[in-house]
Amino acid sequence: MAVFTQFSHGEIIALWTVMGTAVAGLLYAVMLMAQVLREDTGTAEMQKISGSIRLGANAYLYRQFKTILFLILLITAALYFTAGEKHIAIGRACAFLMGSVFSATVGFVGMNLAVRGNVRVAAAANRRSFGDALKIAYRTGTITGMLTDGLGLFGGTLIFMIYGEKAYEVLLGFGFGGTLLALFMRVGGGIYTKAADVGADLVGKIEKNIPEDDPRNAATIADNVGDNVGDCAGMAADIFESYEVTIVSAMILGWASFGHKGVIFPLLVRAIGVLSSIIGTYAVKAKEEVRDAMKAINIGFILSAIISIIGFTLVGLFYLKFEGKEQLPFWCGLGIAGLDMRPVWTTMVGILLAITVNRLTEYFTDPSKKPVQDIAESCQTGHATNIITGFAVGLESTVWAILVICISILISAFIYQGTNPTFVAYGVAMCGIGMLTLTGNNISMDVFGPVADNANGIGEMAHLNKDARQILADLDAVGNTTKAITKGIAIGSAVVAAISLFNAYITDISAITRQTFDQIASALSVSGPNVFIGLLIGGSIPFLFSSLSIKAVGRAAFLIVKEVREQLKDKLIWEGKKLPDYAKVVSICTAAAQKELIRPGLLAILSPLLVGFLLGKEALGGFLAGMILSGQLLAVFMANAGGAWDNAKKFIEDGNMGGKGSDAHKASVTGDTVGDPLKDTAGPALNPLIKVMNMVALLAIPLVIKYEHSRIVGLGSLAVTVFLIFLLLRDPKIEKEAVKT
Amino acid sequence: MAVFTQFSHGEIIALWTVMGTAVAGLLYAVMLMAQVLREDTGTAEMQKISGSIRLGANAYLYRQFKTILFLILLITAALYFTAGEKHIAIGRACAFLMGSVFSATVGFVGMNLAVRGNVRVAAAANRRSFGDALKIAYRTGTITGMLTDGLGLFGGTLIFMIYGEKAYEVLLGFGFGGTLLALFMRVGGGIYTKAADVGADLVGKIEKNIPEDDPRNAATIADNVGDNVGDCAGMAADIFESYEVTIVSAMILGWASFGHKGVIFPLLVRAIGVLSSIIGTYAVKAKEEVRDAMKAINIGFILSAIISIIGFTLVGLFYLKFEGKEQLPFWCGLGIAGLDMRPVWTTMVGILLAITVNRLTEYFTDPSKKPVQDIAESCQTGHATNIITGFAVGLESTVWAILVICISILISAFIYQGTNPTFVAYGVAMCGIGMLTLTGNNISMDVFGPVADNANGIGEMAHLNKDARQILADLDAVGNTTKAITKGIAIGSAVVAAISLFNAYITDISAITRQTFDQIASALSVSGPNVFIGLLIGGSIPFLFSSLSIKAVGRAAFLIVKEVREQLKDKLIWEGKKLPDYAKVVSICTAAAQKELIRPGLLAILSPLLVGFLLGKEALGGFLAGMILSGQLLAVFMANAGGAWDNAKKFIEDGNMGGKGSDAHKASVTGDTVGDPLKDTAGPALNPLIKVMNMVALLAIPLVIKYEHSRIVGLGSLAVTVFLIFLLLRDPKIEKEAVKT
Repeated sequence: MAVFTQFSHGEIIALWTVMGTAVAGLLYAVMLMAQVLREDTGTAEMQKISGSIRLGANAYLYRQFKTILFLILLITAALYFTAGEKHIAIGRACAFLMGSVFSATVGFVGMNLAVRGNVRVAAAANRRSFGDALKIAYRTGTITGMLTDGLGLFGGTLIFMIYGEKAYEVLLGFGFGGTLLALFMRVGGGIYTKAADVGADLVGKIEKNIPEDDPRNAATIADNVGDNVGDCAGMAADIFESYEVTIVSAMILGWASFGHKGVIFPLLVRAIGVLSSIIGTYAVKAKEEVRDAMKAINIGFILSAIISIIGFTLVGLFYLKFEGKEQLPFWCGLGIAGLDMRPVWTTMVGILLAITVNRLTEYFTDPSKKPVQDIAESCQTGHATNIITGFAVGLESTVWAILVICISILISAFIYQGTNPTFVAYGVAMCGIGMLTLTGNNISMDVFGPVADNANGIGEMAHLNKDARQILADLDAVGNTTKAITKGIAIGSAVVAAISLFNAYITDISAITRQTFDQIASALSVSGPNVFIGLLIGGSIPFLFSSLSIKAVGRAAFLIVKEVREQLKDKLIWEGKKLPDYAKVVSICTAAAQKELIRPGLLAILSPLLVGFLLGKEALGGFLAGMILSGQLLAVFMANAGGAWDNAKKFIEDGNMGGKGSDAHKASVTGDTVGDPLKDTAGPALNPLIKVMNMVALLAIPLVIKYEHSRIVGLGSLAVTVFLIFLLLRDPKIEKEAVKT
Repeated sequence: MAVFTQFSHGEIIALWTVMGTAVAGLLYAVMLMAQVLREDTGTAEMQKISGSIRLGANAYLYRQFKTILFLILLITAALYFTAGEKHIAIGRACAFLMGSVFSATVGFVGMNLAVRGNVRVAAAANRRSFGDALKIAYRTGTITGMLTDGLGLFGGTLIFMIYGEKAYEVLLGFGFGGTLLALFMRVGGGIYTKAADVGADLVGKIEKNIPEDDPRNAATIADNVGDNVGDCAGMAADIFESYEVTIVSAMILGWASFGHKGVIFPLLVRAIGVLSSIIGTYAVKAKEEVRDAMKAINIGFILSAIISIIGFTLVGLFYLKFEGKEQLPFWCGLGIAGLDMRPVWTTMVGILLAITVNRLTEYFTDPSKKPVQDIAESCQTGHATNIITGFAVGLESTVWAILVICISILISAFIYQGTNPTFVAYGVAMCGIGMLTLTGNNISMDVFGPVADNANGIGEMAHLNKDARQILADLDAVGNTTKAITKGIAIGSAVVAAISLFNAYITDISAITRQTFDQIASALSVSGPNVFIGLLIGGSIPFLFSSLSIKAVGRAAFLIVKEVREQLKDKLIWEGKKLPDYAKVVSICTAAAQKELIRPGLLAILSPLLVGFLLGKEALGGFLAGMILSGQLLAVFMANAGGAWDNAKKFIEDGNMGGKGSDAHKASVTGDTVGDPLKDTAGPALNPLIKVMNMVALLAIPLVIKYEHSRIVGLGSLAVTVFLIFLLLRDPKIEKEAVKT
């Protein structure tokens, strides 16, 4: 342990300031929590519905944590052996535990607040006003957002303060913990939410012709639980992990490039982000009109962005004084001698990227824009044309998303042109830091979605008055928009984070093999057959992973169909005289999601190891590149196609193209259903996937280098590969007779 | 001109032997042509229907050739300026013309024979037997197959004989000509065939509830024309081009590695392939039972494979005596001193790859296997579950296809392990040569599909007797299987060819910049931001390209819906007293396909140029790698998902899951319709796309190296980029009121 010994006086002050800000962020979350919990919880009926949802959601998370506990402990032990020195090994193992516990906490607390917030939002709409309801819903989201900000910053800073120049090896453990947990939350939550949704609809809407959220349908509570498990816990863990991974890679690359300053600067930037998110989110207040809502949220966002930009500039002016003797171009230091503002410029590129990605996502999924309207129009000619048009829209949207990311990376790299490759990589990492500056605001917007959605559901089930119902419906619509928009950021940041991790991977090989960055680079040429093969295999993994999780939804949904049908055979339930056994469906859903987690999870953890041990570190490099590329393409495709189909349905339900009940509407429902597992299961799970595989590669690289020519390890890996392929080829069996309608 | 001067006596004999074999292949095609045309053409009614199809098909091809003539001439002129020396420049331009003319000829003749063969097959079924009908249909396909073999080999050998060691620069022109034409044939033909199909179905089956191929539907003839234009002309040009490109890259890499021997050996291998295809295809004869048909075709295939393997071994034993002094391992020369059989082993890997890819494609699209049965089962729960399951099957299939290709490349590279990188690249190229050895058989199987399909259609329209109808239906089923299987080869060979081209790209940079392969390799590291950005952009192009072509199908289909509806308003037509104006629909379809060609075509040609000029040759290298990866993934996904949906529908129509007319059947029709533009338009067009972009890069690389730092060229490229993006963002307008049902 080497607390403080390596830091200058000024650095210690800076680090404690960052720590203080992280704690301030957490305190702000606690304050909001108290505010929200103090609100009125509505009628007894509302409380009962909300209580069932809360019970189910908690049951799911407990089971989820229990399932992965063993794996987490196993990996903690394994990590102990990946590091050389003993205190680093202990640190890495502990940091891994801390990362996973933090990620779990963000998900757990976020979800718990969401399931408490929903009923309070409904109550506010019932007894008070639109403005109040909006405020409660938004602030419920902000709690999760600030937890993410605070815990992420706290953990990273703490590790750096304790380990100083060895921090980098420990940080890897921290990042991996968060990422792995996010993967399981995303996959498990994604399967749960869509299995419940599809299962409830197949029996309820299609077979029995009863409305959504009908209390006789045993899957309704599971369906509402799913919204929280997937959109809230899953999303929060996912963004927490991006937030963590970007800071880890920035710190690794910052250390390699600029030493202490390179590490402390991103921490300061993050601290400013926390402050600006506190101010920006607290400023969100709306009057009595719907159109004010989106405006208020946007104003909060822009306010935070402006504060951040000013803050970055100030920190840069005071902190970024380097003593290098080279003459930097004017724009680097604004003409001030010895000033190097380049890290500031790259973070600003990141903020711009975040805003542009938001706009792009909005364009492709907003009902008032051409893509969604094209899809809605194509519903008039039937199911198939709707699917085809949405498919084409999804494919197209990937291109513009990639172009925007490429341009940002290019500018970040351009800012560091003429310097050495680690500096350039640092620039890209800082762009990622900038992109996630406004994480607090983004998560507020995102979690706002399921809270408003649930509040609306409770409002309907508890038969609130018409005015309240209108308020809740309006809130739900706003929530749909904000939720869809933030998906773009989640994916975009995953890619930038993955690219930074990838650069860290190369820096790492370079450190271990004592070769220069250039020497490593030449081994990673796409012209080598191994690298190219790695690229092809890596590119195919997201396809297989998506296929596994989509099929899992189908299988789990069938089980639910069977159970709901069985319960409806009870006359008392069908006549509404007895409540169905909601808990049983929740528990089937939970069990199925856990069981289906195993295969995608193993694929994510094992495939980079196997490629590394069988084909070498160069192939593993190609593998990572290919996987980032196809993961990004698929994730954007699935998110946007799914979002566009969803909104096309809503657009038709608003009375266009014949409105509800028309043939066009039926076709649009098909599109929405197809999009569901894409946008809410497979697509979002790709974000943590690409980072988990990068992390595994980073952690395993010393072992890969050590054993890549070992025959025994090679044969062992071959055996594991055969076993894995065998496992992947055998779909779990389900009882098929459940399917027949 | 330097005919023969550089060759030894033995080499001259070898080259003339190859030439002779190419001519023998062409003569065999002519002989089969005479055989087929000699057959009975059936009743007057049959001839009339077949005549209309032929007219439409020819009208389309004339228009297509006319449209691209200007572009071809423009590029011929431009190519003149890409080469340095004058006689090379002239040679390259002429070779380009020759390549495009050959490709066009294969498509044109193949299609013309198919539209003549169809009626003869129907007549044979009517008056004679199953065996006769099968033989005529298969031999009609063989004509196209042998034309491909013969012309491809003839062109490559001719250029090598004339240009000797300069041949390589001229061969590029030859390859590019074939590839570019194939791209236009695939995109244009693909849009045509699916627009006609979807348009005919939307009005006929869905709106007016009249059966398929009802003579009152003005789009029926266009629909039948489409089968020939897409499956026959498009596919033939596509495989011709793979055949050509693999030989071009093997010759380029062979020259760089082993000089004359490295070039002549692949030519000899190809010659053996031609001979074995002649014998194997001629051996295809079936008795009177359906199950004999598939067996007969497979026996022909295996016979050809055995002859090839024996032939390769013999050629290797006599020809591959190198004078190198190094001690090769036993397996390289079978213990015979100075013998190097490694090129033979790599070609055998290629043959094995072809067989495995066929089996894999069959697994994912065969109605008796699990994937299709899963899809058929999921039709019972509706449209959406069918789409989701098919989507998951398609995603999964990409992984195994890529794994098989990777293993083959690994083995080919392993065979040359420890040698220099160009040798390894040569090994991979020879694997591609091996894979396409049985092109004659493959194209026979593929073209057999549309011929049998058309014959069956003619049989139905001309009301043949029951026995004949059964024979034709059986033939059609066999054709569906063979057609689906060969799609795998088309895509797989495109990838292997593209990888070889990519290696040629690097060899080429190395030659121009006088750097070693290793130096170039290090510039192409995925760790460089430019290469990574190139990778991302390249990966997104196939997504955009697919989106453009899928949307084009939709727009063109709307125009046809409008016209058919307009014609049906004529009471005489509706009552069957007057024939509709088939030609008008054919001409609308033709015009729309030509118009929609422009944007994907420009994207394919311009994007590699722009990446090269704006971001440099390294980014262009990344671009090619990314594009090959995502192109392969998307192409396999679309082909297999489409094929599986198609066969799931057929499986249900055979009486399973409730059979024709059930809800499951309706859902399966949606899947089939969604799959159509994927498997017949966008998917197949990706094969030539990935090769065209590689070719453009190869041809432009001297200019890119010369101008990559020029500010004027950079600004010009930026302007073109902006223009291209603008063009891509503006979908052509169509009159929307046509859509409303």
